[in-house]
Amino acid sequence: MTRGQGGLFDPESEETKPDRSKMASKKQTSKGAGATAERMAQAQREISVSEFFTKNRHLLGFDSPRKALLTAVKEAVDNSLDACEEARIRPEIIVEIKRDPKKENVYTIAIEDNGPGIVRAQVPNIFGKLLYGSKFHRLRQSRGQQGIGISAAGMYGQLTTGRPVRIWSRTSKRSIPHYFEVRINTGKNKPEFTEEAVDWDEKAHGTRVEITLEGEYRRGQRSTAEFLKLCAVANPHVKLTFIDPDGETTVYEPGTKDLPAETDEIKPHPHGVELGILMKMLQETNEKWVSLFLQREFSRVGAKVAKAICAEAKISDRAHPKRIARQEADALKRAIDKTKIMAPPTSCIAPIGTEQIIAGLKKEVEADFYVANSRSPVVYRGHPFLVEVGIAYGRPGDTLELSETGKIYESEEKKKRRKKAAEENLLVDADEPVRLIRYANRVPLLYQQSACAITKAVIGTNWRSYGMSQPRGALPIGPMVLFVHIASVWVPFTSESKEAIASYDESLKELKLCLQDCGRKLGTHIRKGKKLAGEHKKREYITMYIPHIGQALQEILELSDAQTEKTVENLTTVLEKSRKL
Amino acid sequence: MTRGQGGLFDPESEETKPDRSKMASKKQTSKGAGATAERMAQAQREISVSEFFTKNRHLLGFDSPRKALLTAVKEAVDNSLDACEEARIRPEIIVEIKRDPKKENVYTIAIEDNGPGIVRAQVPNIFGKLLYGSKFHRLRQSRGQQGIGISAAGMYGQLTTGRPVRIWSRTSKRSIPHYFEVRINTGKNKPEFTEEAVDWDEKAHGTRVEITLEGEYRRGQRSTAEFLKLCAVANPHVKLTFIDPDGETTVYEPGTKDLPAETDEIKPHPHGVELGILMKMLQETNEKWVSLFLQREFSRVGAKVAKAICAEAKISDRAHPKRIARQEADALKRAIDKTKIMAPPTSCIAPIGTEQIIAGLKKEVEADFYVANSRSPVVYRGHPFLVEVGIAYGRPGDTLELSETGKIYESEEKKKRRKKAAEENLLVDADEPVRLIRYANRVPLLYQQSACAITKAVIGTNWRSYGMSQPRGALPIGPMVLFVHIASVWVPFTSESKEAIASYDESLKELKLCLQDCGRKLGTHIRKGKKLAGEHKKREYITMYIPHIGQALQEILELSDAQTEKTVENLTTVLEKSRKL
Repeated sequence: MTRGQGGLFDPESEETKPDRSKMASKKQTSKGAGATAERMAQAQREISVSEFFTKNRHLLGFDSPRKALLTAVKEAVDNSLDACEEARIRPEIIVEIKRDPKKENVYTIAIEDNGPGIVRAQVPNIFGKLLYGSKFHRLRQSRGQQGIGISAAGMYGQLTTGRPVRIWSRTSKRSIPHYFEVRINTGKNKPEFTEEAVDWDEKAHGTRVEITLEGEYRRGQRSTAEFLKLCAVANPHVKLTFIDPDGETTVYEPGTKDLPAETDEIKPHPHGVELGILMKMLQETNEKWVSLFLQREFSRVGAKVAKAICAEAKISDRAHPKRIARQEADALKRAIDKTKIMAPPTSCIAPIGTEQIIAGLKKEVEADFYVANSRSPVVYRGHPFLVEVGIAYGRPGDTLELSETGKIYESEEKKKRRKKAAEENLLVDADEPVRLIRYANRVPLLYQQSACAITKAVIGTNWRSYGMSQPRGALPIGPMVLFVHIASVWVPFTSESKEAIASYDESLKELKLCLQDCGRKLGTHIRKGKKLAGEHKKREYITMYIPHIGQALQEILELSDAQTEKTVENLTTVLEKSRKL
Repeated sequence: MTRGQGGLFDPESEETKPDRSKMASKKQTSKGAGATAERMAQAQREISVSEFFTKNRHLLGFDSPRKALLTAVKEAVDNSLDACEEARIRPEIIVEIKRDPKKENVYTIAIEDNGPGIVRAQVPNIFGKLLYGSKFHRLRQSRGQQGIGISAAGMYGQLTTGRPVRIWSRTSKRSIPHYFEVRINTGKNKPEFTEEAVDWDEKAHGTRVEITLEGEYRRGQRSTAEFLKLCAVANPHVKLTFIDPDGETTVYEPGTKDLPAETDEIKPHPHGVELGILMKMLQETNEKWVSLFLQREFSRVGAKVAKAICAEAKISDRAHPKRIARQEADALKRAIDKTKIMAPPTSCIAPIGTEQIIAGLKKEVEADFYVANSRSPVVYRGHPFLVEVGIAYGRPGDTLELSETGKIYESEEKKKRRKKAAEENLLVDADEPVRLIRYANRVPLLYQQSACAITKAVIGTNWRSYGMSQPRGALPIGPMVLFVHIASVWVPFTSESKEAIASYDESLKELKLCLQDCGRKLGTHIRKGKKLAGEHKKREYITMYIPHIGQALQEILELSDAQTEKTVENLTTVLEKSRKL
């Protein structure tokens, strides 16, 4: 019996070589199946993660030129915002998209921030290596979490145009700005790069990233412009400048001076840990006693709780973690699950808050009713998360007119005006499904709406009881923008492209509770509005007859025109006084 | 200006170390942003692909215990079938699922095949390393394509139960069977293992894999049992034995002795290559001339075509590939796109064929009409693919009875019988959506039906014109099993779990054409059936009155009972003769 040494199995090592030669000699004697196994073995090789995602780029959101452009911008903006907030700098971000004058469907995107910059040694890996980053291994809310995004955007650019990613970065006024050109060696998932000191004096600190890629620029739904607008709604502390390919500049001014609350990094909560992970942690810890291991590697475990767990598992609290076997680890795991442990600290996540949600909505959506709700954090598998909902309902002056024939009537001009307003403003028509805007850790989600847990929760809420119409299994109908945000230390996306959130019972439940709370308040508003509309209708009906009454009185009482006018005026005043709105 | 050496950038190398020390000294002088950049840099690290998928296991199909069990079985069966077919062995596969007697929700799955076995040196990597395999880098139809599946299943087992994967393998009668226990070191994405020679004399060659995992076993839709049944439909050459946790054994006997046609590995087609890939291939080739590079690294490029491409690109056909710069490569790419090149060989994919599809359906679905269509291969981005459709429609003896009140009536007993029949047989009720069974490279796809290109194509087909009812945006309604198969050298799945196929215009078009062809034939059958049903109704109507006519005649003509009976008999005969079916 041989044993793999320390897990570092190497197909080329001495240990395995004898096998190969044995196999080779066997090849001559045994034909058929054995020979096939040998032939198949020769084709076996490692696949680099870059090669994998080059072939499967649709998993990263690069399946169409249009989406690719948006995804690349999104990844760069996410990184800029994360870096600024971590450094407690109020973000000022410039996004520019330039059309290639010579080649169709080739664009250069440039994202520039006033963030802390990136130290020189890290630039190549951050932009030229997939699965590299600082956010994967920690439990703390951030936009990025995988270490794939920006390097994948660069890889896509390289794949479609052959051009490297260009990065300018400066970490402080006293440091020299540096310029990099980074390519990915996809076979090895490693960066190839050039670097030089440059003049880049516009900023004391910050980063500028340029990627040239095959894309398609369009306005409207699911466009880069829309992404940035929705970003501004959920991030009112950010100043965003967008220069589109036609040179048109849009500036989203910040609506607040306050940065989101600083979040803490937390340790995993014992109730979320699985046996395999626990075994790995036991092997990797530097602690010498199991009880210390429990206290220092997990959150919410004090000396007392640690002791209780060890007692329950029938393990000495001074046992050495590395010597805990599978059976004992299993007992430890079950003891942890049995022990009552305080919920994890929720300082690792920062809600946007009802005030800021409403401020954000007011800035971009002109409506006549706003409401928001921000729930307290709850824990799923040891990961705290929270849900927030905001509603902007109905726009004044956008009510439909009743034509003479009793049918709903809208002039061509008004239709146009409304359409334009709807484009600028996020509100939709009264007879269309509500506009659902989804966010995960303050990042707008534009694609795969139907696959998202947020959408499922909205559809699963009974909006009819709040006075809205809702077809079965669909979004409610009405002039409403529905803002839903999930903040978590770890958002379970349905794919690496981070377009939709996977459904878990726990998150669906929280989402529904939050939607219902806002829904009830909306219901009160809608019912009030309906009562008002009924009153309006009655009054209009009476108003219609006042001139006729005037005429009739004139004929009967032989009034002068002036007297008639006076009478009509009086009647109108009486009506207004008696039927107050 | 410094230049990264050969792309092998190492953060710890001499080249980058000075930066770090500089940064460290800077830390004392500059506060704020610069210090943050430095602090953030220290947190940056590589993420192993195993760590990534441990945290994102839902991407691999391990999001719920129930699905996890199925996914693990599926990956092992896929591998067994691929290995057998590659070795041209008729597959005999045994799948066994055992419940853990002590722990709830813990199961051991065992998959045993009569395949070629795995050479010893490869076992640890195949089962203990994600992104390792023989199928990723080649263009040839196979079930596996990513090098993730079986190692991910083992990783999930390890994570939830702490137990390693157990493998028995033997490559020929003359070789000694070996037994392995393999774990993944997730931090390094490398196997840790033990190995020993064992007695395993049941088979001359083959592999047995055992994984213990947290799961949930259920019967019914999307179960392991259903997966194996659907496997048998599309793989009539396979003998499948399934032993469920209650010890019940189901055997799917092969319906044919012929293995699927052997497929060839092909080179990429020039029309599918992208600039980035072309540049990489130019760098990596061993050819000395561009024209030879084009001929030997691509399919369908002969000397003449290669020369034409070089001329169009204004590059000497004897230029050295490694010296082609980006601009020239761009010109080369555009020249390739302009040049007419024969479509790639389609010997890399093997259809199931109409005969086998119908045979497979007949074996598992009792219906009264079968039709199938297998289209010729077409090419998308240089990858050949083909589409096949099969239909099983209506089951004799399953028509609904009309009750006396005119309402559709079904006795409780009949209902039960029908339900049981529907479970055993794949056919659905007449008033429910058709049963769509989706396949990619002969593998049944059970989850994420609504996200799949196949579903979209079925919904997008107008089934009303073939005599079926179909709600807007939904599957058609009726007693029908719809079998759809896509075979390709590279199936673009929507996630690593391979549950649904991503939508591309080219594949949707092929799917629709194939569905329409079968649909037209089905339409003819349904219309014939409707005519027949109308005739039946008329006859029943007349039959109903015959006894009354008999009675009336008896009264008028004063016939004896015997005479009346005779008359009724005669009338019935006349009816049957005059209104033939």
